[in-house]
Amino acid sequence: MHTSGNLLEKVNEAIKTIDLNRSPGELYSPISYTLALGGKRIRPVLVLLTCEIFGGDLNSAINPAIALEVFHNFTLLHDDIMDNAPLRRGKETVYKKWNANVAILSGDTMFALAYKHLIKTDKGVLDDILEIFTNAAIEVCEGQQYDMNFETRNDVSIDEYMEMIRLKTAVLIAASMKTGAVIGRAKPNDVENIHKFGECVGIAFQLQDDLLDVYADQEKFGKKVGGDIVSNKKTYLYIKAFQDAKGNDKNVLKKYFSSVDFDPQEKIINVNKIYDNIGVRESTIHLINDYYDKALSYYLLISLSDEKKTSLKNFTDQMMQRDY
Amino acid sequence: MHTSGNLLEKVNEAIKTIDLNRSPGELYSPISYTLALGGKRIRPVLVLLTCEIFGGDLNSAINPAIALEVFHNFTLLHDDIMDNAPLRRGKETVYKKWNANVAILSGDTMFALAYKHLIKTDKGVLDDILEIFTNAAIEVCEGQQYDMNFETRNDVSIDEYMEMIRLKTAVLIAASMKTGAVIGRAKPNDVENIHKFGECVGIAFQLQDDLLDVYADQEKFGKKVGGDIVSNKKTYLYIKAFQDAKGNDKNVLKKYFSSVDFDPQEKIINVNKIYDNIGVRESTIHLINDYYDKALSYYLLISLSDEKKTSLKNFTDQMMQRDY
Repeated sequence: MHTSGNLLEKVNEAIKTIDLNRSPGELYSPISYTLALGGKRIRPVLVLLTCEIFGGDLNSAINPAIALEVFHNFTLLHDDIMDNAPLRRGKETVYKKWNANVAILSGDTMFALAYKHLIKTDKGVLDDILEIFTNAAIEVCEGQQYDMNFETRNDVSIDEYMEMIRLKTAVLIAASMKTGAVIGRAKPNDVENIHKFGECVGIAFQLQDDLLDVYADQEKFGKKVGGDIVSNKKTYLYIKAFQDAKGNDKNVLKKYFSSVDFDPQEKIINVNKIYDNIGVRESTIHLINDYYDKALSYYLLISLSDEKKTSLKNFTDQMMQRDY
Repeated sequence: MHTSGNLLEKVNEAIKTIDLNRSPGELYSPISYTLALGGKRIRPVLVLLTCEIFGGDLNSAINPAIALEVFHNFTLLHDDIMDNAPLRRGKETVYKKWNANVAILSGDTMFALAYKHLIKTDKGVLDDILEIFTNAAIEVCEGQQYDMNFETRNDVSIDEYMEMIRLKTAVLIAASMKTGAVIGRAKPNDVENIHKFGECVGIAFQLQDDLLDVYADQEKFGKKVGGDIVSNKKTYLYIKAFQDAKGNDKNVLKKYFSSVDFDPQEKIINVNKIYDNIGVRESTIHLINDYYDKALSYYLLISLSDEKKTSLKNFTDQMMQRDY
């Protein structure tokens, strides 16, 4: 059994072997830049980890693992254009460093490169892997569209929000684990439970992202703390606060989230005060714990010994304890 | 044997069955709009046609055919953003009718939908089809990047230009024919000759596109005649004219292609005059014929009776005679 640190090394080594030394350089430089930014590599590590707990061969899992990471990075490239985001992992986004056209086309190329790796998967499981990946890709796009729709709406319900983050974030985390399970030739029941486990972990993970956007330590965060507030992102924290706010707090929230023309620092401070009044930090932590508990109920159903499957839980425990 | 008209009907029927009645509507409406604009459906018809001449089953070819059409339309959505193009097939482009973010994300979804159809291909040939498609997708992106690079360069050689259109246009035409041939279980030699035939046809087809941009009948064209001139596109006509121009003609061309701030109509008229002086219309027609002749030399090598393969040549003959 490898540690998650070993698996991360394997992923990073494999990413370095992707042939990006191609022409035109204008297309491939932004891809190299993006993949060299690092990041937590959660999705590919989850593919390898899940494959291994079911006794699968890591060499069979590395290409789909890379495919999922390259796909994920492609979505970031395009999301950053749509969100006007200046920073990603502490560095300029491709769209800022180059321009929107470069980010569009390099992103498209990464989507194709993801499939280039995916189709190298062993024939025996290729059909399933292609279907998992392709369906997830479509759902991620649907999630991003809901997210954009929410920007101009003031009546987003918590249910709608939860469905949005399921699509935008959780589906790909779930697909990563499911991919590993299928390559590890897990039984259908286990594939299903792994999938549900992954989806709940993914939702908890995104809620935590919302929380960190407001409460992270700026030194560690890599993005601007409060960025979601400045850009009027409808996060769980905002929706919950707006739902529970009374009197003047509700009007202040409404005013601040109706325009991006406010002084950013002042907006962040005043919105934070309302969040504190209402206790959305605690509500969010509570909901994260609920989803992680639900995840663990599916984990318990996986028909492997505790010893065999514990490395997966150790990794998701770590995911839940991140501070950036 | 079906006529190309029958095959076009089959393609259009199949496109109508794509399930786009999904949520969120904001994501799927632009996709429905794009696919309903029609177009010549050259790529999917070529898949079916090529499959049929080799005795393949059209039902096995329809999903990859749709995949190629959906992919092609995805590239148009993103190209129109990058090119600031207001019109496509006589209608507003998605980027103009909605906005760039919608065009980015609907395009991404179409790329995934293309694979959703592609992976329904018969298992026996799926590996080959996935590889042909994925490599073509990457090359199309490379071609588009070269095309963008050329916009700000004044020293593009004819060789560089020919390689750009090979990647941007010809590779996908070739991939369409190759896909049909593989599904029709053509012999390896025939697959190779079909591929080369398709690539030469594709290059001739793109040169004709360049020609039509300047000399088409505005009523039939669907885009603005002279659009390439207005936006300083480095087409074959421009590169050839700039290479052959003497004295003042060269300076005038250089001036006009250094900015987009000129009065469009005046620019078109003056550039056309220089094209006429140099005879680039004739040079372009000559080059188109050279490539189509080269294509036909590969066609002759295909080991089918004339009777069997003639429908393919009839179709490419038609492609070469279009006036829009």
